[in-house]
Amino acid sequence: MTTRPSAFTRKDFRLFRDIPTRWMDVDTYGHVNNVQYLSFFDTAVNGWLIEEHVLDPRRSEEIFLVVETGCSYFSEIVYPDRVAVGVRVARLGGSSVTYDIALFRNDGDVACAQGRFVHVQVDARTRRPTPIVGARRTLLSSIVAGD
Amino acid sequence: MTTRPSAFTRKDFRLFRDIPTRWMDVDTYGHVNNVQYLSFFDTAVNGWLIEEHVLDPRRSEEIFLVVETGCSYFSEIVYPDRVAVGVRVARLGGSSVTYDIALFRNDGDVACAQGRFVHVQVDARTRRPTPIVGARRTLLSSIVAGD
Amino acid sequence: MTTRPSAFTRKDFRLFRDIPTRWMDVDTYGHVNNVQYLSFFDTAVNGWLIEEHVLDPRRSEEIFLVVETGCSYFSEIVYPDRVAVGVRVARLGGSSVTYDIALFRNDGDVACAQGRFVHVQVDARTRRPTPIVGARRTLLSSIVAGD
Amino acid sequence: MTTRPSAFTRKDFRLFRDIPTRWMDVDTYGHVNNVQYLSFFDTAVNGWLIEEHVLDPRRSEEIFLVVETGCSYFSEIVYPDRVAVGVRVARLGGSSVTYDIALFRNDGDVACAQGRFVHVQVDARTRRPTPIVGARRTLLSSIVAGD
Repeated sequence: MTTRPSAFTRKDFRLFRDIPTRWMDVDTYGHVNNVQYLSFFDTAVNGWLIEEHVLDPRRSEEIFLVVETGCSYFSEIVYPDRVAVGVRVARLGGSSVTYDIALFRNDGDVACAQGRFVHVQVDARTRRPTPIVGARRTLLSSIVAGD
Repeated sequence: MTTRPSAFTRKDFRLFRDIPTRWMDVDTYGHVNNVQYLSFFDTAVNGWLIEEHVLDPRRSEEIFLVVETGCSYFSEIVYPDRVAVGVRVARLGGSSVTYDIALFRNDGDVACAQGRFVHVQVDARTRRPTPIVGARRTLLSSIVAGD
Repeated sequence: MTTRPSAFTRKDFRLFRDIPTRWMDVDTYGHVNNVQYLSFFDTAVNGWLIEEHVLDPRRSEEIFLVVETGCSYFSEIVYPDRVAVGVRVARLGGSSVTYDIALFRNDGDVACAQGRFVHVQVDARTRRPTPIVGARRTLLSSIVAGD
Repeated sequence: MTTRPSAFTRKDFRLFRDIPTRWMDVDTYGHVNNVQYLSFFDTAVNGWLIEEHVLDPRRSEEIFLVVETGCSYFSEIVYPDRVAVGVRVARLGGSSVTYDIALFRNDGDVACAQGRFVHVQVDARTRRPTPIVGARRTLLSSIVAGD
């Protein structure tokens, strides 16, 4: 097995998004299926971008596509549970942004899972990368890790 | 097309369960896919039964299985939206319970979709129907429509 | 409980679409979750329309939206299983089409679940109903029940 | 953005599992959502283990839990498409197994996405790691990369 990362705790994050689990998230082993964790990453990041008014998935001329995801699993989530998704920017590149994401179960302070999620900004029509500038860059800069 | 039912409004329900939409609920047409609506039914009913301590999916000797579902769709839900799921019992039979379920989008008072959801209580091991009695019957009786 | 419909058998259908189950379809009770059955309806109908070249979800000026679904469940599906989805048109209206759909598990001849699925054709932009004509009407007519 | 791995081709794999896409896999951008790719990993690996008779998810005394996943995305998959999932063992540890997984779209020879998927074998009851031995070890050894 690969070297396991150290678990994040809540103090590593300023931005949190809440996602309650659903009945259908649970698989035959009685816990939330590993795949659903990744949907929490996607939902948290896109939801934040939309609510901060820098992304309109159906109308923006530039959208974000996922080019890499990864998740390490430490402990189970079940139904019903509330998941707090901690989101921060690990690296803000010219046209890409790498997020650190951690999932906290109910009132837990230590991540039950965590990973990386890499978005590339592309032209919605051509799907070619474009530089992240303006309001988006300002917003993303506001959650850069360690600032 | 079949005759469409009249839309429920919030006053038709006493019990509500909140479910925020997720990024992945949305399909190529930019709205929550029709299938996800049914997952809201399942999540609302089971979540209520679990939190009221009458169901433990992994340990209860008697569980509820779905034998019928149905949904009529009136208007769209998107991401991000909050869905309030109204739940009431339309009919409480010997071993089955028929729920009326309505979905309300954000602060909307008129259902954007509604349907029926029929559970049968079965022995967890044999999967044969068993009579609904005791705390479960009392709980279900508390949300019978029109009482 | 409501009156249960008689189960369809394979001879009731001429059109079948194959869908293998997935690990994540299975819920905590060890069988395919009831919600996934409805996704098989959606996948079978749209896949057929696309492969018959009468629907391009991203480019067609008229698309089909679901206005009603319903499913009765008779017996379990698990993972891994192959599901054969029988599809026929129960009623072809001016702008709507009501499908009868039945799910057959592996080599089973009797439906393990069946239901109705109602599409309305709408203008992709305005989302107002439009009459089903031309190649679409011809195709849909070819699977009308009882013909 | 991180350094991108070189894309696998079909000749890197001996074991393939076929998974057709579904309507609901597609998100608002008109392509299969990134999260679903991970469900293809899970489905391919578990399906193979079950069909080779070394795993019975509901009865085996030892099951496999996911401790790490990761995926790099190179190009889109849409609906309807057939995905061929190439699976091989990158590292077979004492109680864990790391899979290399690549997704090939329709007749494509170059992976449209690929990643890692790490299972740990645990006791189904205690969820503590146990050594992978016997028929399971033999089976897993048969698809070790580079042999």
